[in-house]
Amino acid sequence: MKKNNNNEGRRKFIQQTALASAGMMLINPLDVFSQTNKSLDMNKNIKSRGYAGKDERGTLVKWDFERRAVGDNDVLIDIKFSGICHSDIHTIKGHWGAQKYPQVPGHEIAGIVAAVGKNVTKFKIGDQAGIGCMVDSCMQCDSCKNGEEHHCETTGMTGTYGSPEKSSPTGITQGGYSNNIVVREHFAIKIPNTIDLKYAAPLLCAGITTYSPMMRVNFKKGDKIGVVGIGGLGHMAVKLAVSKGAEVYAFTTSASKVQDIKGFGAKEVIVVNAAEDLKPLKGKLDYMISTVPYAYEMSSYIDCVKPYGFFTQVGQPINGQLEINNFNMIFNRVNFNGSLIGGIPETQEVMDYCAENKIYPQIEIIKAEEINDAWDKVVSKEARYRYVIDATTF
Amino acid sequence: MKKNNNNEGRRKFIQQTALASAGMMLINPLDVFSQTNKSLDMNKNIKSRGYAGKDERGTLVKWDFERRAVGDNDVLIDIKFSGICHSDIHTIKGHWGAQKYPQVPGHEIAGIVAAVGKNVTKFKIGDQAGIGCMVDSCMQCDSCKNGEEHHCETTGMTGTYGSPEKSSPTGITQGGYSNNIVVREHFAIKIPNTIDLKYAAPLLCAGITTYSPMMRVNFKKGDKIGVVGIGGLGHMAVKLAVSKGAEVYAFTTSASKVQDIKGFGAKEVIVVNAAEDLKPLKGKLDYMISTVPYAYEMSSYIDCVKPYGFFTQVGQPINGQLEINNFNMIFNRVNFNGSLIGGIPETQEVMDYCAENKIYPQIEIIKAEEINDAWDKVVSKEARYRYVIDATTF
Ligand SMILES: [Zn+2]
Ligand SMILES: [Zn+2]
Ligand SMILES: [Zn+2]
Ligand SMILES: [Zn+2]
Repeated sequence: MKKNNNNEGRRKFIQQTALASAGMMLINPLDVFSQTNKSLDMNKNIKSRGYAGKDERGTLVKWDFERRAVGDNDVLIDIKFSGICHSDIHTIKGHWGAQKYPQVPGHEIAGIVAAVGKNVTKFKIGDQAGIGCMVDSCMQCDSCKNGEEHHCETTGMTGTYGSPEKSSPTGITQGGYSNNIVVREHFAIKIPNTIDLKYAAPLLCAGITTYSPMMRVNFKKGDKIGVVGIGGLGHMAVKLAVSKGAEVYAFTTSASKVQDIKGFGAKEVIVVNAAEDLKPLKGKLDYMISTVPYAYEMSSYIDCVKPYGFFTQVGQPINGQLEINNFNMIFNRVNFNGSLIGGIPETQEVMDYCAENKIYPQIEIIKAEEINDAWDKVVSKEARYRYVIDATTF
Repeated sequence: MKKNNNNEGRRKFIQQTALASAGMMLINPLDVFSQTNKSLDMNKNIKSRGYAGKDERGTLVKWDFERRAVGDNDVLIDIKFSGICHSDIHTIKGHWGAQKYPQVPGHEIAGIVAAVGKNVTKFKIGDQAGIGCMVDSCMQCDSCKNGEEHHCETTGMTGTYGSPEKSSPTGITQGGYSNNIVVREHFAIKIPNTIDLKYAAPLLCAGITTYSPMMRVNFKKGDKIGVVGIGGLGHMAVKLAVSKGAEVYAFTTSASKVQDIKGFGAKEVIVVNAAEDLKPLKGKLDYMISTVPYAYEMSSYIDCVKPYGFFTQVGQPINGQLEINNFNMIFNRVNFNGSLIGGIPETQEVMDYCAENKIYPQIEIIKAEEINDAWDKVVSKEARYRYVIDATTF
């Protein structure tokens, strides 16, 4: 729990496992070869149908667009389910910077491989596959080689939507609120057949984003972990931490969520109406993760962590701006950090872990036409706990 | 360098050393006994003469006041030198909260023991002694027992000035801009005879405040340490880090300081006019400490630390408020923390270390009547690098 950077052993294990499972795919190459991309002209752009934001007002509308042709290292995924993340809303509304439009959001994507480029070894047609928050990186730098593609040191990662991309007919990457997607195979996650695609989708952002920083602190069974903000990310943090043996303290401003959260396995649910409500836990928690996607009065939360413990802010406020009070920091002695998502090997790890341990997000399936309504509910904290779009309705 | 909390071994060593040296004082108790407090009525309040702030305008004026009588566990110190810390200015001007006046600031105090209470074992009359930022704590809680009196869990530490204190005739503690002080012996630091009192004074805040967080990160020889803000604290951070074998990168906004700072042993001095100037060091430093006592654009500085490294803010801005940008934090992966001062054993450690290794602050001796002028110069960054008041001029 105490050390922030000594999980090299684990990272090595993750990578070896990832390599091993990639290797296993090659045991019977004929299987791959036998499944040709029969009906598809591999030189032609892929026609897509989705929902796009057209401007910062953030109302999504139906949109037909094209994706690049399936390249030698690419897979085409027929999307079955696509989760709604608060980041989608922030991005399209320009809260995190100016955007290019039309833009299709969505980075919790689960579907079936429909075509594979000739160099593809990790997937065959018919496989379950997922895409999270990134679709490309340089693959050459130390970070990329170490399975931290999201921290690519040369080009930076290419986000699943809104990132400039030469190969994309629209000039930017287009995300998962659509019926298909083309992606470099390395950035697609293998989804075991033991987990339903609708549950797999939210693991690709909400799952990995909370899993990665929690695993970094190497918490022990019985350690007290606080989770602030119990929405899409937060409820996964609770489930994952509980599953790994932590005693979980969940902080929410929604009294109506208490029973649900106890159902997720939290030991205690603190309904926070005022900073005062946090006092009893001052200095009591081994680690804390906050998924709150807005600026908020962080100090009283940070104060709940034991001296020299860590507090991770994964929720991204408008323009990234947060206020921190150094009077608190010099006394609480807590280490504050941020965390982005996770690399591809670790995203595969959380997917496999959740499949094996039956850790499923609590979802509500919606139709494409309900997206705008769902966004409003996410913002007004009415989501319980992840909206997942049925991609057959695009 | 990487771990923030594995110096328990060292802390234990510090404590044992402190106990051992306290024990040594008892070898010849007759020495203590032979020096009686002849001319002093131990039941009478001590008359003091100093400079006090009278209101938030922060102009200091001469003031005669009383301190408590020397108690059984107290020592009376004739102050010889008193350092000027930026905290004095912030406090008296109410930047950190409302104050009681008149208030005598000053928490870098060095002098000679002039009287000892009957239970005192650590000092005898004539000893060199110092006082830093605190003068009392509960001495019972785990933090106090572990030599972290500044993090006392029951009463909190009693600051050297401005803290409510029943035993003080003025109702609050009164600091070092004066000719004497009465303090519980535990909170007085032994100043070796090998270091001049004028150099010892600034070690009691500027020294320990930078030494403590730097020692916490257990940096190795050759590690790259960044120091932001090269004033009273910053120049000590440079000297201490250099002395411990670090490669020091000093960040200042004052081009006129470059030669001095190189003289302190810094490998590189970066004169920062714009965030752009920090780019070349992005992700390059193992650790960074900032002594800047105002809110400033921290992000580009924090970005200079390597992923998973630590950045410590010891300078305290107005009301403690700092802005942190989480877009930077999720990519730089740096751990941000604050640090207060250090406990008594560690303050003794830095005093002994500096005496032994001849690490002296760069000071300018002033008279009491020059204090207000010196404060103006501290604020306008003209101090080079620590003003120390000659206490014979009060
Ligand atoms: Zn997301
Ligand atoms: Zn890269
Ligand atoms: Zn100070
Ligand atoms: Zn205590």
